[in-house]
Amino acid sequence: MIKGIGASPGIAIGKAFVVPAWEWDFPDKAIDVTDLAYEFERLYEGIRSSKDELEYIKQEFKEVVGQEQSTIFDAHLAILEDPIFMNEIQGIIERQYKAAEVAVKEVIDKFVGMFDHIDDEYMKERALDIRDVGNRLLKHLLGDMEEEAIPPTDHPYILVAKELAPSQLAQLDPSKVLGIATMLGGKTSHTAIMARAMALPLVLGMEGKLIKPIQNGDLLIVDGVEGMVYVNPEPAIVERYRAKKEALLKQKERLQQIADIAPVTVDQKLVRLAANINTEKEVEHALRSGALGVGLFRTEFLYMDRDSAPSEEEQFDVYRRVAEKLGGKPLIIRTLDIGGDKRLDYMALAKEDNPFLGYRAIRISLDRTELFRTQLRAVLRASHYGNIKMMYPMIASLEEVRAANAHLDSVKRELTAEGIPYNAAMEVGITIEVPAAVMIADALAKEAAFFSIGTNDLVQYVLAVDRMNETIAHLYEPFHPAVLRLLNMTVEAAKNAGIPVAVCGELAGDVKALPIWLGLGIEELSISVQSILQVKDRLLQSDQAECRKLLEELLKLPTAKEIHERLSEAERQYSVSASSCRD
Amino acid sequence: MIKGIGASPGIAIGKAFVVPAWEWDFPDKAIDVTDLAYEFERLYEGIRSSKDELEYIKQEFKEVVGQEQSTIFDAHLAILEDPIFMNEIQGIIERQYKAAEVAVKEVIDKFVGMFDHIDDEYMKERALDIRDVGNRLLKHLLGDMEEEAIPPTDHPYILVAKELAPSQLAQLDPSKVLGIATMLGGKTSHTAIMARAMALPLVLGMEGKLIKPIQNGDLLIVDGVEGMVYVNPEPAIVERYRAKKEALLKQKERLQQIADIAPVTVDQKLVRLAANINTEKEVEHALRSGALGVGLFRTEFLYMDRDSAPSEEEQFDVYRRVAEKLGGKPLIIRTLDIGGDKRLDYMALAKEDNPFLGYRAIRISLDRTELFRTQLRAVLRASHYGNIKMMYPMIASLEEVRAANAHLDSVKRELTAEGIPYNAAMEVGITIEVPAAVMIADALAKEAAFFSIGTNDLVQYVLAVDRMNETIAHLYEPFHPAVLRLLNMTVEAAKNAGIPVAVCGELAGDVKALPIWLGLGIEELSISVQSILQVKDRLLQSDQAECRKLLEELLKLPTAKEIHERLSEAERQYSVSASSCRD
Repeated sequence: MIKGIGASPGIAIGKAFVVPAWEWDFPDKAIDVTDLAYEFERLYEGIRSSKDELEYIKQEFKEVVGQEQSTIFDAHLAILEDPIFMNEIQGIIERQYKAAEVAVKEVIDKFVGMFDHIDDEYMKERALDIRDVGNRLLKHLLGDMEEEAIPPTDHPYILVAKELAPSQLAQLDPSKVLGIATMLGGKTSHTAIMARAMALPLVLGMEGKLIKPIQNGDLLIVDGVEGMVYVNPEPAIVERYRAKKEALLKQKERLQQIADIAPVTVDQKLVRLAANINTEKEVEHALRSGALGVGLFRTEFLYMDRDSAPSEEEQFDVYRRVAEKLGGKPLIIRTLDIGGDKRLDYMALAKEDNPFLGYRAIRISLDRTELFRTQLRAVLRASHYGNIKMMYPMIASLEEVRAANAHLDSVKRELTAEGIPYNAAMEVGITIEVPAAVMIADALAKEAAFFSIGTNDLVQYVLAVDRMNETIAHLYEPFHPAVLRLLNMTVEAAKNAGIPVAVCGELAGDVKALPIWLGLGIEELSISVQSILQVKDRLLQSDQAECRKLLEELLKLPTAKEIHERLSEAERQYSVSASSCRD
Repeated sequence: MIKGIGASPGIAIGKAFVVPAWEWDFPDKAIDVTDLAYEFERLYEGIRSSKDELEYIKQEFKEVVGQEQSTIFDAHLAILEDPIFMNEIQGIIERQYKAAEVAVKEVIDKFVGMFDHIDDEYMKERALDIRDVGNRLLKHLLGDMEEEAIPPTDHPYILVAKELAPSQLAQLDPSKVLGIATMLGGKTSHTAIMARAMALPLVLGMEGKLIKPIQNGDLLIVDGVEGMVYVNPEPAIVERYRAKKEALLKQKERLQQIADIAPVTVDQKLVRLAANINTEKEVEHALRSGALGVGLFRTEFLYMDRDSAPSEEEQFDVYRRVAEKLGGKPLIIRTLDIGGDKRLDYMALAKEDNPFLGYRAIRISLDRTELFRTQLRAVLRASHYGNIKMMYPMIASLEEVRAANAHLDSVKRELTAEGIPYNAAMEVGITIEVPAAVMIADALAKEAAFFSIGTNDLVQYVLAVDRMNETIAHLYEPFHPAVLRLLNMTVEAAKNAGIPVAVCGELAGDVKALPIWLGLGIEELSISVQSILQVKDRLLQSDQAECRKLLEELLKLPTAKEIHERLSEAERQYSVSASSCRD
């Protein structure tokens, strides 16, 4: 049993297939070659094949995880075209009469060593890229000389590797891989992101924790939630995990049965459960999960998979289709929320020291007004064809809402003049995710038709904790009393102004937080499609009046620990009453 | 008259000395050299001289601006030792029979071109470094061949350059330079930081704005506040600027006369004006400016100018001396506030995507407890010798205060056991700079002897704006209504708990904000030594009761614009009454 880091949830049980680390042995004839022209030809051929392969992988990869992450392969392609890199290799062949693969190996080692020595994360990452590209080139140069481990095709397997490059993962048959376990790697690595996107359980960081190496055919259990890997476990453990897997499956089936029931509490309070979506494709799944609409359409994904911003027409088509698919259920479109950790090459955003405190979201829209107005036109035009609302992200001042609305008004006048139909009464709200917005929520509520609380960023700013930063990730605490009080202030301000409040951050989909939302009297929770039914299950068995009392207690607690404890206590009470209900 | 960017305040009037840009012409004999051994010898000699010179500059520079910034020269030294760089140069000499300087020039151009092409700020900065080092090496190789412009020694001058490298500025005689004007450069460049440290007026960004080039001996006015440069201005303008300079000087003299007056408002309310200091050296200046103590001793500067953390003994000596120099006036020592934009090489902090939302201040102290406890011991021991208080930076939760205090208690027990004297009743406060701290100020007030509000970070987090980021710097708005309300909440919580509140951020020294502090009933303003007397001047003529009324109005205003306008209006009223007082 090894405790690693759970980087993609789920349970996998199956036989190990071990990917050997790339190691190269050269035959003696590789030194003192005589036919230099032949070596050069091999080198160029190897580079061409490597580039073709990288292009292919890039395309494959793009389909799974999108344009943004596939750009890492551009960096790899660039290395193969780097004049210094190539000059060095050619020089060694030419002057030292070494075979192409030996020259490549020497140059890689030299560059990797150099970059690796620099005490700088960025440079170290470059070293990894060079190593990765170099290994690919070597593979092509050595051709048949090298035996590549071929994954089994007759049965599914759990992949085991020292470190798995995203390109390696991209090349596997997804129907055959049950789960992954690696020695190295981080939770935020490209491989981890991709595993989550592919719903493959992944545990990493097992380095130094294995008593003996995992062999091909070993029976493994990968528990991506707990971060555990079992090697040849006892039958009792396998049985337990099979039962656990089974239970998860049953739970899933059971949940599907409540998809069409209205999301009301025991005391008949309706809480609209809506879906967060990134793409048009997710609408169907959302509806199947009983979503009462889309509470957050992240339009930035429309901008990401490409070389230039989408045209008004393209956007209009997508917004209209999504709205029509929802058949009258509301669709809340959030205007472009780019910047921070989301970047677009074609926008040429400058590198920032603190991108989360930088040029992003509405700040970009109000600065690059062409881009913004194109989106506003597309949204307005689509509003004629469905129940569309819109909201601005990252609002931190009244001036920003007014400036954005001034653009909206002027775009409306344009459309009117052009005789293009739109819903003149389209509701426009704002996201509450900057602490300043909470502090002036009373004023903002006068300019907005609704609030949608983005808990991810709000928590991040209130606590001054970048949740992607592993060193301090433990300080990212959504149940911090400061967060609770800010949420309460937001709801109070909205109530006073008579506008509704939704929550659309990750916390909205956390079952543990549900009593808080019910206690606050939140009208709508917009959550990832995967979590809707779980939240609904709990919602159907909750009592809003009780949650309100609980919230009052919570608001008085001074530490996150006490809030967690009180919520767990409430949860235990809930479990007891829920199980007694079922009995 | 040219409008550039004011990067260091002050007015300079004097004759121009133009530093020509480094440009190289090679004699024909530089190609097809015959004595390769001689060229290699020249190359090595040039590298040795360049390295010696860089070491020398680094030392010089360190004395002016400290260890931290002098590390850029380490990067330069590393380039001279880079094997790829050297191999390339040697290869060209060896294979193409070119002189050392030609080879160096070619390799620099190649590398700079390569790095420059990569669309990445970091890489572009590396290109600048390579160019700078290459030029230095060329200078040494060309030796007497090249005529270097020598600054005048008989009269002071204003330095004019296309772009000024910090190393160039470091080599000038500071008593002769009146001010600087450059075509390129940014406000946050090393040169700008250095100019501010040296109190030299600096205007940059004049590129493309000059009708004809500035010549040696041209009469210049550099206005570092307005970012203006006048070339051969009319006598009337010179006269106006001389008068302005004179007036600034007179104002300074007038202010010095109020240094010893107690800082009380017209209605007899005392507001303690204390100093923010970075080093022991500033204590004397603080006392001369009438500071009633030190409200913020930034101890991180003790940690910065060196290769390892300061020992307990070293710290104890400094804290004790500062306390003793203050002769009973209070000294508030803030524990180590490193991280964010302040880094220490010997601490090997990882590169972070958002350092301001990362591993810093108390987070580091509670993680690297050895370091923290050493500081606590030093502070406690010094507390026996003066009026010392202590505060923890970046507190975001009750748990952090408790954990820090647990260390303090255990260190106290150690000292007691060792028979070392300390002030067992030393007051311990916290800084309020994370929004979360404001939201739980009621709970924090029960664990802290006092609050000190750090406005710089507070504003930054509340608005989610990195104030160092030029693209969005205009959104950094200390007079945002959200900030005002958070300040008010903090003061309310402190009043309820009966503990005092100080303000120690930059805003404390902003005369425009004084009515806010008076209105809130802030007990202490801790400000940079340069601003104490200006604030006092205004304080002596302010009425606290009026400010309280004004604040009540301000708290109702929903935008920063309205707050600014209302404050300006109040300021105009003040000016009228103040001038009528003086008449």
